[in-house]
Amino acid sequence: MEYRIEKDTMGEVKVPADKLWGAQTERSRNNFKIGPEASMPLEIIYGFAYLKKAAAYTNCELGVLSKDKRDLIAEVCNEILAGKHDDQFPLVIWQTGSGTQSNMNVNEVIANRAHQLAGHKIGEGEKTIQPNDDVNKSQSSNDTFPTGMHIAIYKKVVENTLPGVKKLRDTLHKKSQEFKSIVKIGRTHLMDATPLTLGQEISGYTAQLDHGIKALENTLSHLSELALGGTAVGTGLNTPKGYSKRVAEYIAEFTKLPFITAPNKFEALAAHDALVETHGALKQLAVSLNKIGNDIRMLASGPRSGIGEITIPANEPGSSIMPGKVNPTQCEALTMVCAQVIGNDVSVSVGGLQGQYELNVFKPVMAANVLQSAQLIGDACISFNDNCAVGIEPNKKVIDKMVNNSLMLVTALNTKIGYYKAAEIANTAHKNGTTLKEEAINLGYVTAEEYDEWVKPEDMVGSLK
Amino acid sequence: MEYRIEKDTMGEVKVPADKLWGAQTERSRNNFKIGPEASMPLEIIYGFAYLKKAAAYTNCELGVLSKDKRDLIAEVCNEILAGKHDDQFPLVIWQTGSGTQSNMNVNEVIANRAHQLAGHKIGEGEKTIQPNDDVNKSQSSNDTFPTGMHIAIYKKVVENTLPGVKKLRDTLHKKSQEFKSIVKIGRTHLMDATPLTLGQEISGYTAQLDHGIKALENTLSHLSELALGGTAVGTGLNTPKGYSKRVAEYIAEFTKLPFITAPNKFEALAAHDALVETHGALKQLAVSLNKIGNDIRMLASGPRSGIGEITIPANEPGSSIMPGKVNPTQCEALTMVCAQVIGNDVSVSVGGLQGQYELNVFKPVMAANVLQSAQLIGDACISFNDNCAVGIEPNKKVIDKMVNNSLMLVTALNTKIGYYKAAEIANTAHKNGTTLKEEAINLGYVTAEEYDEWVKPEDMVGSLK
Amino acid sequence: MEYRIEKDTMGEVKVPADKLWGAQTERSRNNFKIGPEASMPLEIIYGFAYLKKAAAYTNCELGVLSKDKRDLIAEVCNEILAGKHDDQFPLVIWQTGSGTQSNMNVNEVIANRAHQLAGHKIGEGEKTIQPNDDVNKSQSSNDTFPTGMHIAIYKKVVENTLPGVKKLRDTLHKKSQEFKSIVKIGRTHLMDATPLTLGQEISGYTAQLDHGIKALENTLSHLSELALGGTAVGTGLNTPKGYSKRVAEYIAEFTKLPFITAPNKFEALAAHDALVETHGALKQLAVSLNKIGNDIRMLASGPRSGIGEITIPANEPGSSIMPGKVNPTQCEALTMVCAQVIGNDVSVSVGGLQGQYELNVFKPVMAANVLQSAQLIGDACISFNDNCAVGIEPNKKVIDKMVNNSLMLVTALNTKIGYYKAAEIANTAHKNGTTLKEEAINLGYVTAEEYDEWVKPEDMVGSLK
Amino acid sequence: MEYRIEKDTMGEVKVPADKLWGAQTERSRNNFKIGPEASMPLEIIYGFAYLKKAAAYTNCELGVLSKDKRDLIAEVCNEILAGKHDDQFPLVIWQTGSGTQSNMNVNEVIANRAHQLAGHKIGEGEKTIQPNDDVNKSQSSNDTFPTGMHIAIYKKVVENTLPGVKKLRDTLHKKSQEFKSIVKIGRTHLMDATPLTLGQEISGYTAQLDHGIKALENTLSHLSELALGGTAVGTGLNTPKGYSKRVAEYIAEFTKLPFITAPNKFEALAAHDALVETHGALKQLAVSLNKIGNDIRMLASGPRSGIGEITIPANEPGSSIMPGKVNPTQCEALTMVCAQVIGNDVSVSVGGLQGQYELNVFKPVMAANVLQSAQLIGDACISFNDNCAVGIEPNKKVIDKMVNNSLMLVTALNTKIGYYKAAEIANTAHKNGTTLKEEAINLGYVTAEEYDEWVKPEDMVGSLK
Repeated sequence: MEYRIEKDTMGEVKVPADKLWGAQTERSRNNFKIGPEASMPLEIIYGFAYLKKAAAYTNCELGVLSKDKRDLIAEVCNEILAGKHDDQFPLVIWQTGSGTQSNMNVNEVIANRAHQLAGHKIGEGEKTIQPNDDVNKSQSSNDTFPTGMHIAIYKKVVENTLPGVKKLRDTLHKKSQEFKSIVKIGRTHLMDATPLTLGQEISGYTAQLDHGIKALENTLSHLSELALGGTAVGTGLNTPKGYSKRVAEYIAEFTKLPFITAPNKFEALAAHDALVETHGALKQLAVSLNKIGNDIRMLASGPRSGIGEITIPANEPGSSIMPGKVNPTQCEALTMVCAQVIGNDVSVSVGGLQGQYELNVFKPVMAANVLQSAQLIGDACISFNDNCAVGIEPNKKVIDKMVNNSLMLVTALNTKIGYYKAAEIANTAHKNGTTLKEEAINLGYVTAEEYDEWVKPEDMVGSLK
Repeated sequence: MEYRIEKDTMGEVKVPADKLWGAQTERSRNNFKIGPEASMPLEIIYGFAYLKKAAAYTNCELGVLSKDKRDLIAEVCNEILAGKHDDQFPLVIWQTGSGTQSNMNVNEVIANRAHQLAGHKIGEGEKTIQPNDDVNKSQSSNDTFPTGMHIAIYKKVVENTLPGVKKLRDTLHKKSQEFKSIVKIGRTHLMDATPLTLGQEISGYTAQLDHGIKALENTLSHLSELALGGTAVGTGLNTPKGYSKRVAEYIAEFTKLPFITAPNKFEALAAHDALVETHGALKQLAVSLNKIGNDIRMLASGPRSGIGEITIPANEPGSSIMPGKVNPTQCEALTMVCAQVIGNDVSVSVGGLQGQYELNVFKPVMAANVLQSAQLIGDACISFNDNCAVGIEPNKKVIDKMVNNSLMLVTALNTKIGYYKAAEIANTAHKNGTTLKEEAINLGYVTAEEYDEWVKPEDMVGSLK
Repeated sequence: MEYRIEKDTMGEVKVPADKLWGAQTERSRNNFKIGPEASMPLEIIYGFAYLKKAAAYTNCELGVLSKDKRDLIAEVCNEILAGKHDDQFPLVIWQTGSGTQSNMNVNEVIANRAHQLAGHKIGEGEKTIQPNDDVNKSQSSNDTFPTGMHIAIYKKVVENTLPGVKKLRDTLHKKSQEFKSIVKIGRTHLMDATPLTLGQEISGYTAQLDHGIKALENTLSHLSELALGGTAVGTGLNTPKGYSKRVAEYIAEFTKLPFITAPNKFEALAAHDALVETHGALKQLAVSLNKIGNDIRMLASGPRSGIGEITIPANEPGSSIMPGKVNPTQCEALTMVCAQVIGNDVSVSVGGLQGQYELNVFKPVMAANVLQSAQLIGDACISFNDNCAVGIEPNKKVIDKMVNNSLMLVTALNTKIGYYKAAEIANTAHKNGTTLKEEAINLGYVTAEEYDEWVKPEDMVGSLK
Repeated sequence: MEYRIEKDTMGEVKVPADKLWGAQTERSRNNFKIGPEASMPLEIIYGFAYLKKAAAYTNCELGVLSKDKRDLIAEVCNEILAGKHDDQFPLVIWQTGSGTQSNMNVNEVIANRAHQLAGHKIGEGEKTIQPNDDVNKSQSSNDTFPTGMHIAIYKKVVENTLPGVKKLRDTLHKKSQEFKSIVKIGRTHLMDATPLTLGQEISGYTAQLDHGIKALENTLSHLSELALGGTAVGTGLNTPKGYSKRVAEYIAEFTKLPFITAPNKFEALAAHDALVETHGALKQLAVSLNKIGNDIRMLASGPRSGIGEITIPANEPGSSIMPGKVNPTQCEALTMVCAQVIGNDVSVSVGGLQGQYELNVFKPVMAANVLQSAQLIGDACISFNDNCAVGIEPNKKVIDKMVNNSLMLVTALNTKIGYYKAAEIANTAHKNGTTLKEEAINLGYVTAEEYDEWVKPEDMVGSLK
């Protein structure tokens, strides 16, 4: 491989000749061979691209950067956002906990690419744009990295997570409307209970997701606060007057998202409770989705020796050894995602609680986990929706048989003959393997006519909204 | 011990003669000898007392319970809330996951005590009030237990957690104002960084708690939704028309808290995402408080061989072997609470994700963990506030020495001579053990006058709001 | 209330006159009002009693404590171990993270009680025994508290957890032998699969517990290492020569457990990985038990609209509203315990990872969580065993019907006609609601005789060990 | 793109013409668009390659597969293990929870590639080797996937994790020997305590890692048990006699690792407690490493306003804004890895506890998390070792100053004058800002000669092994 020489304040480093990055990126590659290469999420790099461009515009507007430099920086940022340099960011999550090396990776790539755009060859002549003094002007890793991660996560939540969850929520809502008159047995403690409709059952899932969506949206306010302008420790050292507010406005303009400058920059650098908060809501969604996914696979279990009250789409052969087997694979993918997210929540907390003084140095691991959870939940909801939820259908024959068999219909008699006598009827029928009606009459507590009038599953499900 | 005979639908049970509980409570005592007795939190019992009274009022108002019975039930509930029967609730968390046995414990105690209040002897004559048919009228364990736990947790959060956190927040805010002009060294990566004021540093803690308070308050809306009226599976079977809404209004009236009936009862029984949501915010507070507690002990470390920039109150001898030692014990209690809360969060999630069909049967463990976390955070904040935070004082001598020594003051030169030359100055001073000023001049990058004008810690801390 | 004056190095404190504790205990009571009083587990106090006695014996033997003092100290320790002073330890978990205050609580109670035993009145005359100089001789909180917690946890594991798990394991093993010829349908992905015996199914649970027991026993070695003799920072300052080894031998003798002195005292004070290790195994058991408990409730679900292949004992009325309902309550208590333990594991980890320099100051929270998990798992296994597992019975009628219906019996044909044709048979039977045999013959792939010979559930379950 | 038609039991699927995979792989690609493509770890694919080859050998040896087919299958497996087909496994973790689709991916690639090796063109003519009937012979996804993951994880642990941890352990041990006579201040509660040597301090880290290594090695036994031979539900249906034992022997031979056939196949399919167990030990290591990494960065903090008792290598510029700053970046990468691993542990537990009946369907997420943790810990230890630990050096000047200043040297006087008088000396010196010696003499408790004889830091550190 061919190399060129790049320099930083520690000296010279050999960098692959065809790469845009510089000395500090290369040092990081060599010093942090932990896990697969390039694990630092590209979304964060794109977050950096937005903020570097915004910083350049603000610096120019406030008179500390030339218009030429601003335009060169902005042009490279646009290229990065267009995905043209995705292979120029080889660093890993497991680097310095401030993300300094990824900030420098971006600074170096912008500086070198700007040199090219200015008509020069990398490594030849004075750099047109300096990575620290120009690209990083009025910035520190300590405020850029958290800004980049807020941008990345906010975008992911609103562009991926929320649409995915809402799509599934809407399908479930539609199903709950569609099935609102299908009376089925209820189950509590996994045991036969009083009836409800399939629509009511599914409406519970919808309500869970509604609450989860609201909880997640509640966290966006904290996430919209950007650290940028705090520089090294939150004081804003080396930023021109008015910079913080203006740079957040530019970011809001470029991303079309309602970002603002963090009212307290010390919190924004030293703590990442905003990520803890957002992931808390993602975890809540995971808890909800796990319940939903597990319920649906239990309801669809069988086909002959399970519950089988609903059917779900058969998307692929389910077994490499059992011919004809079909499995609730989308439920499995969904609940595996939930398991991941619930663990990720702990990683985020463990990172979050260990900030020290003016800086939390668990930024990359926190951001990567939030991004992964946000992505997985969004994707899994779409996958589950399209390949499973939309195809849920009731198995009327099974549903009817199960509800009519149930001993818990006796509950309707509580208000007529009291809990104790009703219990006697149910216990006797259970012991004898008979029907409630038979025993209710045998025991002399109700007549056949009364029984038929009082014990109707369809009257036991309340009002159907 | 003397016993009397109590009955339920399964037969007779011997109950200690001096106890108010009945057959089902006694069965549970015998069947669930897991951990210490009476671990079911009393707060939940009190929640039950509110709801039983509200149900009696509603049932009476809607014509299904006599005024006499209502008043007897209400009187016992008032006694329970006055703490007169705390020793009548011997059951454990580790019982049935619906809390049925604690619901029956309450029903039985109310029925037996009402019998006494009506002038009878327990176990003699027909029960004045029936535990199932009267006390539990229009109710199921499946909707009462979640209602009881929502009441308990909501009260705990607003009466204990939030006041505790706010008290600490206010003290820290006061300290941050008080110390707003004390310039000290900043530390990032635990390494010397550019200066900030002690007030700014503490303001970061305040901002963390402000965000945490807001996050916790955001969860109260979900928590205010009560399951009561859903009965067995959410359909409201065996409730009179209008019951749900009215009973929630009574609970709101009795507790003076803004409870409402849950819009979707199926969610309210089958999922406890409201608890997951509330605990998510408690966990966020734990993450914040751990950072704060740890920072304060690091800042106060020493007295001679640590950081020592602040002093905190010496409340007790710190060591059984090292005479004269004083330790940051309040920080330790606080951060231990945080460790507990972060684990509790996982217990709540693991319980929450395993609801099945119409019921989540991890209610007691979820509720107990949320209550514990809410209590511990509130108490620990008060303890930390009163015994530590109010006594935080700067150690000016140390602070001044440390900030003036710092090589990172060189950052002020970035905008004057560029990052690379500034680095050279710092590196040289570090290598030679000299001052920045000496090397800045030696290297010829600035004059002594320029240095003195440009490098002033007090100018490097931004505007002090 | 009446008070007496007690003193420590910080001055005078008023202590309730009827209590044995002294100044430092009282300070702690006042300074740490966090959660319910006396939450520090008594097991740890008993651990202290063992070690204080052992230290007195060792100090005496090594010539630094008089025989009279040794005997007085030992006598009080024996009283404590006999449960005579359980109400003298009012402190909470949420105190100093080294447990110094509980160490002093023990020291003070021993000193004051010894003063009584020596015929004096507390608070009058020179203390016969000094809490620091005598009771705490050759000790520090930093080595006594970890020693106390190792003793407490080791005892709990071998006296409670392991016997509980083994009892359940043995019952399940017996059941698996008993049911070894009952052929039933297998279920994978909750869907019908090829058959196995009920005994085989249960043998999987046994194997899980066998592995869990072994994993837990593996951790005892680390737990047997005692910090005592390390004193303040691990160096053994102020201990007589030979003390560490001898004091561990005394503890082993008094507890009849194989304790040894920790080879590295610095690890034993600064890290509590032994607790992390032990709790890791407890968590593994929780994971196993959750699977077992959940399986059993699914297998027992019904009685009419569930799986219903087994029956479990009906121990109590299951519902306050649904008469005659019986629920898998022991499964619920067990799985709630599992949820608690899995969260406790995170608390233990979060405490464990935050040791700093020579001391981990999350000792009380770590110890309390390990003790709780060890207790709950042991108790819950006994409760589940006695009230559920011993009563598991097969429901032969249901079992037979379900296995004979299953389309997955077709798998037996794979080796005869290949996977693809077998799949065609199963798919056709599923579509048409017919039997495998009908379609197998219709499709012309096998004769009736071949089918009957090749497809026998009892031949599909392998060798029954 | 060009396509060819592949078929499975559900019908035809279009597959990219240049790919070796078949219908089921392609279905999975389309049905599970969750997170980045090809996230299923290659290590598991390689595990499959070992087991497919072993199955072919065993099937041949037991007379159910021809030698020609065996050799073709083995040849493709060898190619896979040589990394020649890494791009043929595009599936994600978030698929069916049994990993069926990845099993079929491997079966299809082997079948198609074998067809090529046999001189044919994919898609033309009868398949030389059938994916289900030949490659998957005597197998099910349900036993192959867990076998593949055990192979993958075992190899990762012994080839990556253990060597990494041991390398770091050895370096720390060497350092602890090297620094065994450097007396420094101890710190407990972050506060000045009695002295120890730097070697002793580091020996605590070594002991932690020794325990962690042992704990991890303890888990290998469970991990060595292979599910293969259990087929669909653990009964071994459709396997020739003797298969299980023989196929494990082949795997042991091919991998040169001590694999055996699982004594209980039902456990091996339905529960993955072996993974829970192994990850428990990985988590313990994470807890240990977090403590070590954090200690080292605290000890190295400064350079002028921190603790600064040791220096660590300066590997890269630490700040994009603060010139000359050097940070403990390796500590940060290491502790971020720890945060990840501690969260992964919860994901593994949450997956592990949700097995149902004969199958746990959280296999891919559990395996992926264990593999990630095992890799990250191994890599991070190497990185931390090579770039940080090997370069740890004492800063003698700082160390000496700090130890000599310490008030806790007074502890040496306990055994001479008692704890109370010693405390008085320390408190007075602290209050007056004087030295212990001055106050000890002033207070008249010791003479200058006594003080000098009794209070020597080097005598307070115990025996140096």
